Amino acid sequence: MTTPLSPTDRSTIKRGKHRAVTDRAALHAVLDNALFCHLAVVVDGAPLVLPTGFGRDGDRVFLHGSTGARSLREAATGIPVCVAVTIVDGVVYARSAFDHSMNYRSAVVHGTAVPVTDPEEKAHALRVLTDHIAPGSWDYARKPTPKELAATSVLALDLTEASVKIRSGPPGDEDVDVAANEKWAGVLPLHSTWGKPEPDPALVGEWDVPEHVTRRSGTSQG
Amino acid sequence: MTTPLSPTDRSTIKRGKHRAVTDRAALHAVLDNALFCHLAVVVDGAPLVLPTGFGRDGDRVFLHGSTGARSLREAATGIPVCVAVTIVDGVVYARSAFDHSMNYRSAVVHGTAVPVTDPEEKAHALRVLTDHIAPGSWDYARKPTPKELAATSVLALDLTEASVKIRSGPPGDEDVDVAANEKWAGVLPLHSTWGKPEPDPALVGEWDVPEHVTRRSGTSQG
Repeated sequence: MTTPLSPTDRSTIKRGKHRAVTDRAALHAVLDNALFCHLAVVVDGAPLVLPTGFGRDGDRVFLHGSTGARSLREAATGIPVCVAVTIVDGVVYARSAFDHSMNYRSAVVHGTAVPVTDPEEKAHALRVLTDHIAPGSWDYARKPTPKELAATSVLALDLTEASVKIRSGPPGDEDVDVAANEKWAGVLPLHSTWGKPEPDPALVGEWDVPEHVTRRSGTSQG
Repeated sequence: MTTPLSPTDRSTIKRGKHRAVTDRAALHAVLDNALFCHLAVVVDGAPLVLPTGFGRDGDRVFLHGSTGARSLREAATGIPVCVAVTIVDGVVYARSAFDHSMNYRSAVVHGTAVPVTDPEEKAHALRVLTDHIAPGSWDYARKPTPKELAATSVLALDLTEASVKIRSGPPGDEDVDVAANEKWAGVLPLHSTWGKPEPDPALVGEWDVPEHVTRRSGTSQG
């Protein structure tokens, strides 16, 4: 839990160094609390970034690969990717426009994503991916057929090269602005909360909402 | 408002075509409702994606450029970027693990981001950026000094090449699973709400929270 992240030049935070966090437990926490990620690849020399599902399995993450990126579908041996997850905790209202900011938890992972093709490992990856967005759903829902398994593309990415950046707390105004005491400053927190389950109108008859869904309802996300 | 988006090959949605939205008003709405974006660039041939602030100004967006990406700082004439904004509205609990999904609103913009250097345009861009994360703050807060203005890097990106994808509503289970009626299915909505303002402990004396902050408190984000 205390293995430090392995910094390379590109995963070493240069701006806002005081916000960099370098222990692996913090990386895991940010990843586990984020609902989805943004996955970036290079296609024809240009960047492409798309939101996609992911789930952590120890010191790697699985990614849903069928994001429409040609390069992902073509990468049999692996493809350079960058994955970012970001949770915003609030807006920081500073005394100056310049010092306005956000409170957030952010992780960026660099590496080579490798397709998961072994059927057993793929089924395991899909359990991890499903339970990340919907804890308990893998055990409850109908499992994938071999055809569905084949139609799903999964990538695995090691968490070897990663950075974590966290900002929390009040504004970081200039001393002169704080001393002047002429403007209000503070934080407006942002809360993400699961609402009330909305049953599918196609359900027939009376249904109790399953426990893995009801226990999430009303709780915080992130 | 009804000018269609101009699709190129890379901005044409191939997967989940039924979720593609092609009018410009929808693009504007997704951008305006997202609090921040993920900005992807190519650095040394590898993708880099980072969360950053943005704000829309008609048919372009301004981006905070000082994200630590060398390539951004070096791009005097423009740099190929891809910007994604994603708002998650809920998790879709399907009858099958395979059909689990999320409800979301997503926009992806491709193009060449150009540094904003003209001082007057830069001040305008900073107003747009500030008011995007904190509406009303530009007028309320202390304006940037020439030194602060110089220390801030801003990029402009046209919205010419963009795609919008929206998923809403109940699960899209297979007919056979719906007919079996053996599993609960539905949507668990995710709500993002502004909390109670937390005044900076460094404020001296009694302070009323300004109206542009209090009017946001308790409202939905996104």
